[in-house]
Amino acid sequence: MFSDPRSVAVIGASANRAKWGYWLAAGALAGAHRRDVHLVNARGGDILGHACVTSLTAIDEAPELVALCVPGPMVGAVVDEALALGVKGFLGITAGIEDEPAIAARIRAAGARLVGGNSLGIFDAAGELDLSWGTFTPGSMAIVSQSGQLGSELARLGEQNGIGVSRFVSIGNQNDVTAAELLLDLAGHDDTRVVALYLESFDGGEAVFDALRALREAGKQTILLTVGSSAAGSRLARSHTGSLTAPVDVVDAVCRATGVLRAHSPAEVIDVARTVIAGAIPAGRNVVVVGDSGGQCGIAADRAGDYGLAVPALSAAASKDLEALLPAGAAISNPVDLAGAGEADLDNYVRAVASAIADPGVDAAVLTGYFGCYGADNPELMDTELGLAHRLAAAADAAGKPLYVHSMVATGPVADQLWASGVPTFGTVEPLLRALSGASVFAAPSRDLTAAEISAQFTGTGYWSARTTLSAAGVVFPDGAVVTDRDQAVAAADALTGPLVLKAAWLEHKSEHGGVVVGLVGSDTVGAAFDEMHGRLGDGDYVLEEMDVRPDGVEMLIGCQRHPDLGVTVTVGTGGVATEVYADVVMESAPVDVDTAAAMISRLKAHKLLAGWRGKPATDVRALAETVSAVARLAAENPDIAEIELNPVRVAPDGVVALDALIVTRL
Amino acid sequence: MFSDPRSVAVIGASANRAKWGYWLAAGALAGAHRRDVHLVNARGGDILGHACVTSLTAIDEAPELVALCVPGPMVGAVVDEALALGVKGFLGITAGIEDEPAIAARIRAAGARLVGGNSLGIFDAAGELDLSWGTFTPGSMAIVSQSGQLGSELARLGEQNGIGVSRFVSIGNQNDVTAAELLLDLAGHDDTRVVALYLESFDGGEAVFDALRALREAGKQTILLTVGSSAAGSRLARSHTGSLTAPVDVVDAVCRATGVLRAHSPAEVIDVARTVIAGAIPAGRNVVVVGDSGGQCGIAADRAGDYGLAVPALSAAASKDLEALLPAGAAISNPVDLAGAGEADLDNYVRAVASAIADPGVDAAVLTGYFGCYGADNPELMDTELGLAHRLAAAADAAGKPLYVHSMVATGPVADQLWASGVPTFGTVEPLLRALSGASVFAAPSRDLTAAEISAQFTGTGYWSARTTLSAAGVVFPDGAVVTDRDQAVAAADALTGPLVLKAAWLEHKSEHGGVVVGLVGSDTVGAAFDEMHGRLGDGDYVLEEMDVRPDGVEMLIGCQRHPDLGVTVTVGTGGVATEVYADVVMESAPVDVDTAAAMISRLKAHKLLAGWRGKPATDVRALAETVSAVARLAAENPDIAEIELNPVRVAPDGVVALDALIVTRL
Repeated sequence: MFSDPRSVAVIGASANRAKWGYWLAAGALAGAHRRDVHLVNARGGDILGHACVTSLTAIDEAPELVALCVPGPMVGAVVDEALALGVKGFLGITAGIEDEPAIAARIRAAGARLVGGNSLGIFDAAGELDLSWGTFTPGSMAIVSQSGQLGSELARLGEQNGIGVSRFVSIGNQNDVTAAELLLDLAGHDDTRVVALYLESFDGGEAVFDALRALREAGKQTILLTVGSSAAGSRLARSHTGSLTAPVDVVDAVCRATGVLRAHSPAEVIDVARTVIAGAIPAGRNVVVVGDSGGQCGIAADRAGDYGLAVPALSAAASKDLEALLPAGAAISNPVDLAGAGEADLDNYVRAVASAIADPGVDAAVLTGYFGCYGADNPELMDTELGLAHRLAAAADAAGKPLYVHSMVATGPVADQLWASGVPTFGTVEPLLRALSGASVFAAPSRDLTAAEISAQFTGTGYWSARTTLSAAGVVFPDGAVVTDRDQAVAAADALTGPLVLKAAWLEHKSEHGGVVVGLVGSDTVGAAFDEMHGRLGDGDYVLEEMDVRPDGVEMLIGCQRHPDLGVTVTVGTGGVATEVYADVVMESAPVDVDTAAAMISRLKAHKLLAGWRGKPATDVRALAETVSAVARLAAENPDIAEIELNPVRVAPDGVVALDALIVTRL
Repeated sequence: MFSDPRSVAVIGASANRAKWGYWLAAGALAGAHRRDVHLVNARGGDILGHACVTSLTAIDEAPELVALCVPGPMVGAVVDEALALGVKGFLGITAGIEDEPAIAARIRAAGARLVGGNSLGIFDAAGELDLSWGTFTPGSMAIVSQSGQLGSELARLGEQNGIGVSRFVSIGNQNDVTAAELLLDLAGHDDTRVVALYLESFDGGEAVFDALRALREAGKQTILLTVGSSAAGSRLARSHTGSLTAPVDVVDAVCRATGVLRAHSPAEVIDVARTVIAGAIPAGRNVVVVGDSGGQCGIAADRAGDYGLAVPALSAAASKDLEALLPAGAAISNPVDLAGAGEADLDNYVRAVASAIADPGVDAAVLTGYFGCYGADNPELMDTELGLAHRLAAAADAAGKPLYVHSMVATGPVADQLWASGVPTFGTVEPLLRALSGASVFAAPSRDLTAAEISAQFTGTGYWSARTTLSAAGVVFPDGAVVTDRDQAVAAADALTGPLVLKAAWLEHKSEHGGVVVGLVGSDTVGAAFDEMHGRLGDGDYVLEEMDVRPDGVEMLIGCQRHPDLGVTVTVGTGGVATEVYADVVMESAPVDVDTAAAMISRLKAHKLLAGWRGKPATDVRALAETVSAVARLAAENPDIAEIELNPVRVAPDGVVALDALIVTRL
């Protein structure tokens, strides 16, 4: 009923172009050839040649969808009237309705549905339904937006860049219909190829991401825009929607696992959406830059890294092909600089791109420079250039990899033909690189985050119970024992190999409360240390453990957290000062398999420390990855675990040992 | 003679639109109303209705400027013929001339000048001189480019964005006329407001930066584009111009000291150039974001940090003003979200911006959202919106700070008027933020890098002479002494306070060669250590020093380097692993005063360690800054010093002590 209703009514329709009621009425009337359109205005009158009725009751039958544009205090009465008539769909445009939750509840109770309130409107291209502020051009991008105006910006930017809208829903306050429902519906919407989604809050985030997964499975890509990555942004979002923003790094982790691109601005959304619609999705982030200007090639290569792209040296075979093709002054590695060969023989553009893109080490080619200007600067060359554009696209197709073009003339026949044949063409190089990088996200498979259900929930407290549970999950701890009096401590000391550490294991912040004594050698020393600590801290579960004195170890930390609406994340990072000063941590959604955990570790700046620093032996990175994976699985499978922290975890050449651990359960 | 010559000749003029000779001839003819234009083609003929002569000698008098478009092998002969006729100016278009340096030498010897070869051409708006591939729109941006095509891209992008060119010089191979000369000439060029400079190499870089300083003093701002910030980029530049690229971080340091903006792409150059021409230069990087959409405000605030901008909470006074103005749901800190108040009363845009921009804590305001669309969406509102645009500009003027506008409709009458009244207006928010941030560079004063000339040059080698020279410059070292035999070592040990360290002071990498023994207490221990080390390493200047055992110290490093063409830099960073793993270093051109050094330290990620970490006392950051300044001055004032390294330098709450030092002299 929100995409192609049999009939609509606009309540609060207006002839004043500055009012919402005008835009809704005008939009509704544009669909009057396929549905009944009723305009309701308490004072009657005429809008765009269409007579208004003065109330809903004046309409013969109940309209399928009613758009509410009346002032806030009137909305409740209008809705009740409509429900009494049997209306099943409501679009709430009016903002700031005090009793909106109650109205929504009455709508739901009547078996009807509400989009909004505070919606900027809806549009459906196939259904020729336009009930919104603004106008839309039909196309294959769906927009679902928690901010009406941001959704509107996305639609306008899309139109300026040649892509139209399949469906637009400004979800407003989501007092009934949710983003997740609308997204799930889009999975079966044939006209939608790509979804632009703006969300400020992630209430019901798991349902949203389930829907995004369904979209992905239906072959539709989603680009998510959100706010709150800055202090000012989250201050604002709080005041705007009243909800706390989700930590953006958690959202990013879920997006990576789901195969969704988290974009940073409307312009990025549109640039990536265009390339997705053009079908130019590279399998990875290695690009070869080809151009006829050293300067432009250099700028493209320099900027590529800023967008997470690599510009690797070409293989010997590809360089040899290029060497045979190009003059002596040309650059034949990567970037490939034609050095005049393009101007001398335009076919060289095609030959060079074909040779470069064939290199198995690259996922996509970028052609930068004068190509695209020949016909514009010299009309006699237009047909030649169109032919070359056709052959460039064919060369990319033959390689099974996308070609992107940066041209100083990115509008007109050549650019149009390039886009039409699946070659994204941009007038400046940054949007090109951003789009190429963004599109590569859609080549990566989404990860399965399903966690096994387990029967035994973790319910313990203190270090020893955390240690026991983590040990069972596969985490290695030093040899040790629980001791509650001096005799037990001395006996344990005899059975363990020093130096030893004595911990007041029930304390959360042991060090700060004097609950840790290190470097104990010999049972007498241990006995004395026990007496001293027991004298201060009293009875409790103390733990005596062997210290990890292996050489060449690196201190790391592993943590897990359960987030409202966004599932469980696992974090690995360098321990100590580096954690906070250099923020050297990597986070992903849990669970993670060992390979994913290894990939996380390789993204740490400290990776070179682990790999053997300045002649030191390499640490056992695989064992660290196994530990990360084990901890993540434990957290993901136990719904009662809110948080796990292993800090420090010491990784050395012969394995990983956890030196402290904490498990926090949900209240 | 390169801007408004009395007469020009194009040698190698052509009627074929695909050839350079055509474009040069056509451009030259466009100035035929103010100068004699001669077209030379060996086969005669007619170009655009203008008859060619078959050789230079057929012209009555020597043309003032001759453009060379003949094939490479012919250039030498043509130049000699022209010199014999008395030609004083040459523009070398032809590329790949083998004997170009020799030809250039003949030109100079004859008292003539050459721009190029391998130039894409020159253009001068006031002189109505166009000798180039392409066409130019007159304006106030000068372009000086080492890559012709990149210069051309800058001109085209400028034109697409409403700014034209005052002068364009593609400097090509710089075989005679240099970038520095051309830049210096622009300092006195009234029509030029902003200079876009593309350089790949910095041969003669000090002259270039002297010229940029002169431009700055003349009130003209320069935006520099270069390549080589990536491995691929420098690989390419090497193959393109044959010259090594300068390390971009050194170029950046010189740019900061000179007051030049180093941009990253042609698009950034143009966006900043537009704002400079509009006069919208903020005094700093604190912005207030105002908008009528929470989503758009949030995106702007989130992205600001990516461009080095801050979005600080507003002062209580400004928030109070806004609270009085806006409805209950509005956000009144920063961002300021009108929450419908703009739509309800358009005057609120002006009132909110005026209140927000008046806050002394902000340097500029950003208005984002629907403003700029009212007239476009509803022509009846166009006059109203133009009036509001006028008042918005006036509000910014009254505050003496720039206003930038992000509007979903950034072309048309409202945007044009905003630009004309000094309010940069962009259709997407990233270029706005990038331009605002870039323009703020021009508010900072340039730093004086003049170093005092000194008479006594450093000529020593080894640690002790470095220590002596650095001590005299004000760097604090531990108490210590040079010892060459066991008796001296024991005597020195008695006079010093242990623990002590014994160093084989003449070795560059002492630790790696067993030339350092630490923790020596008592003269016997010192004597034994001396014997052991002397037995291994033989005679030499050993140094016995007190160890720095002060608590709560942080290890830092200080380094200086003299770069070919780019002067001396000073670097401060965290010592140890963090230097290389986290690249936590800051570099500036030397000398630096103590405040500049302090600002450098505050930019380190490790600054929070220095400021007192987790309850530890703060270190003596001022003393560290004084040391950085002293070392930088020493390096800057001694032309024979190639490099200084102090690593580690230990800073504690009671001051700074250098624990090792090295001075490398130039060969």
